[in-house]
Amino acid sequence: MSTGEGSVGRAILKRDVLRPFFLDGHALHLLDQRALPFEEKWLVLRTVEEVAVAIETLAVRGAPAIGGAAALALALVARAGGSPDDLRAAATRLRRTRPTAVNLFVALDSIMGHANEGAHALVDAAERHVLDDEAACARMGDHGAALFVDGDVVITICHTGALATCGQGTALGVIKSARAQGKDVRVVALETRPLLQGARLTAWECAREGIPCTLVTDGMAGFAMTRLGVTKAIVGADRIARDGATANKIGTYGLAVLARHHGLPFYVAAPTTTVDVCTSSADGIVIEERQPDEVRTARGVPLAPADAQVWNPAFDITPPALVTAFITERGVAQPPFEAVQQ
Amino acid sequence: MSTGEGSVGRAILKRDVLRPFFLDGHALHLLDQRALPFEEKWLVLRTVEEVAVAIETLAVRGAPAIGGAAALALALVARAGGSPDDLRAAATRLRRTRPTAVNLFVALDSIMGHANEGAHALVDAAERHVLDDEAACARMGDHGAALFVDGDVVITICHTGALATCGQGTALGVIKSARAQGKDVRVVALETRPLLQGARLTAWECAREGIPCTLVTDGMAGFAMTRLGVTKAIVGADRIARDGATANKIGTYGLAVLARHHGLPFYVAAPTTTVDVCTSSADGIVIEERQPDEVRTARGVPLAPADAQVWNPAFDITPPALVTAFITERGVAQPPFEAVQQ
Repeated sequence: MSTGEGSVGRAILKRDVLRPFFLDGHALHLLDQRALPFEEKWLVLRTVEEVAVAIETLAVRGAPAIGGAAALALALVARAGGSPDDLRAAATRLRRTRPTAVNLFVALDSIMGHANEGAHALVDAAERHVLDDEAACARMGDHGAALFVDGDVVITICHTGALATCGQGTALGVIKSARAQGKDVRVVALETRPLLQGARLTAWECAREGIPCTLVTDGMAGFAMTRLGVTKAIVGADRIARDGATANKIGTYGLAVLARHHGLPFYVAAPTTTVDVCTSSADGIVIEERQPDEVRTARGVPLAPADAQVWNPAFDITPPALVTAFITERGVAQPPFEAVQQ
Repeated sequence: MSTGEGSVGRAILKRDVLRPFFLDGHALHLLDQRALPFEEKWLVLRTVEEVAVAIETLAVRGAPAIGGAAALALALVARAGGSPDDLRAAATRLRRTRPTAVNLFVALDSIMGHANEGAHALVDAAERHVLDDEAACARMGDHGAALFVDGDVVITICHTGALATCGQGTALGVIKSARAQGKDVRVVALETRPLLQGARLTAWECAREGIPCTLVTDGMAGFAMTRLGVTKAIVGADRIARDGATANKIGTYGLAVLARHHGLPFYVAAPTTTVDVCTSSADGIVIEERQPDEVRTARGVPLAPADAQVWNPAFDITPPALVTAFITERGVAQPPFEAVQQ
């Protein structure tokens, strides 16, 4: 191991902050988000296959975090002496894990641009990707916080905090930045069935960070707007098309419609790595459909007849007309996004 | 026991149809809906207190079924030789069980009108209440079925079938009637967190009755409208104010907003016993808030941090402007409802 090769781990371990993974001299250590908030279990991943399975099985999730984990998986291959061909095979495997989050493909493309430059350069690129995402979260927070005022009650879906990124988070990160400015911003968190990222992760991270948070079921979103004094909605994104069509966790589209009906601003917070300049509109976005048992069960417990027919899209698409503004690390933006991505 | 006193049980037992309860010479037998679809467990209830607890703990639920169970609980008291004072105490206890479904209060008032007429008259009144509700379901089905066409894909929430009434059901009953007319009407069922009446009961009853049903999570309602070809929405009701404001299972209001956004008809199917002529508008409707652990868990399994702050309204209120039409046993109606209730 060269000194440079260990620096990702050190850079991330140095701080006493919540992060979904870190690289040390031996392995990629990854907090198993499936076990949270009931158990803080760290997986020790040494191979690309192990990282790919961790992404597929949602041990790590959240579009920017998936990109970061994939980047560090390539670093593992390079550090183990992998050839450019090994790196290409690894990238191919990682591309197959999940189809919707574009950050994964952006990260792989960016780092594979250094596949022929040796281990040090590749690990360096992976480290830069992770640190760039962290910095993007911070800048997104600065830009977004300006949109929030003291007393805001903000409804959100899924989990968009530190565990979903390489930094403080996207949508939840913006709320953290607003609170850091002294604004009393409170959260209404949708539990986000079927996999309950809101109940398990957002409620947990809010408690850990001292953010007041009220947990509700997904069906309560509309009534919460009328009864809990909700003033704004903010969500993350897994892929944003050039026209602003936004793929995000299933339930986002319904939340956007409800926000519009109630005259509430609806913000999407995402780094520009989430903008897919190769996709012009919703039609180009592949929506991952997952196993029916995710809907028939919760944390392994049956909720429905075992043979119930199920539809289980992991994401939905919100048309740009329902999005008040996009909060990115480069500022508060409106589509089209041709020029945003570098 | 007089012959008349046993007739409720016989009338309901005679048919090979799904019903939430029946009265025999010994007790009120009640299908424990908390255990469905995993176990068909019949509770044997001999006292008003047992019936009250069954209502409170949702062993029986669904506004018309709650009314029917309460009616038969009074019959139990009368058959056991209870005095008018005993009947009044029983009615007082039953009134305390759940605050939102008006059918409970309508049933108790109607049957208590016979409190001084002896056991036979009281049991007769209870039996009539149950049979009237069954007949109302059938007529509601006839009126509502005319609104549905071959090929309709109908989204619904909670459970509004036989187990929720004394007959074939309200909203799901209308779908049954439409299918009995030869129309291929399919169901998209929202799972209906926190208590999962859609996943547990609607999916189960649809399978049992041969109705094609696709189960989705509550957050999928909006995306289902765009991707599953949903053509209509239909729901039941727990209380309808004179102006048409409709209290129903939490999530109904959001579904109504989504239906409006997509230009889909949104129907409420309920017997006129669900219309509360004493309540002029939404302001007069008490919304039951239930224990936070219902949201923090599913079927007893933790889903969220044990100390997560939760908001858990059991119902929401849909304003009349979002309801295309009300389907009752007297026809398809529009508010105001002053004249509907007898």
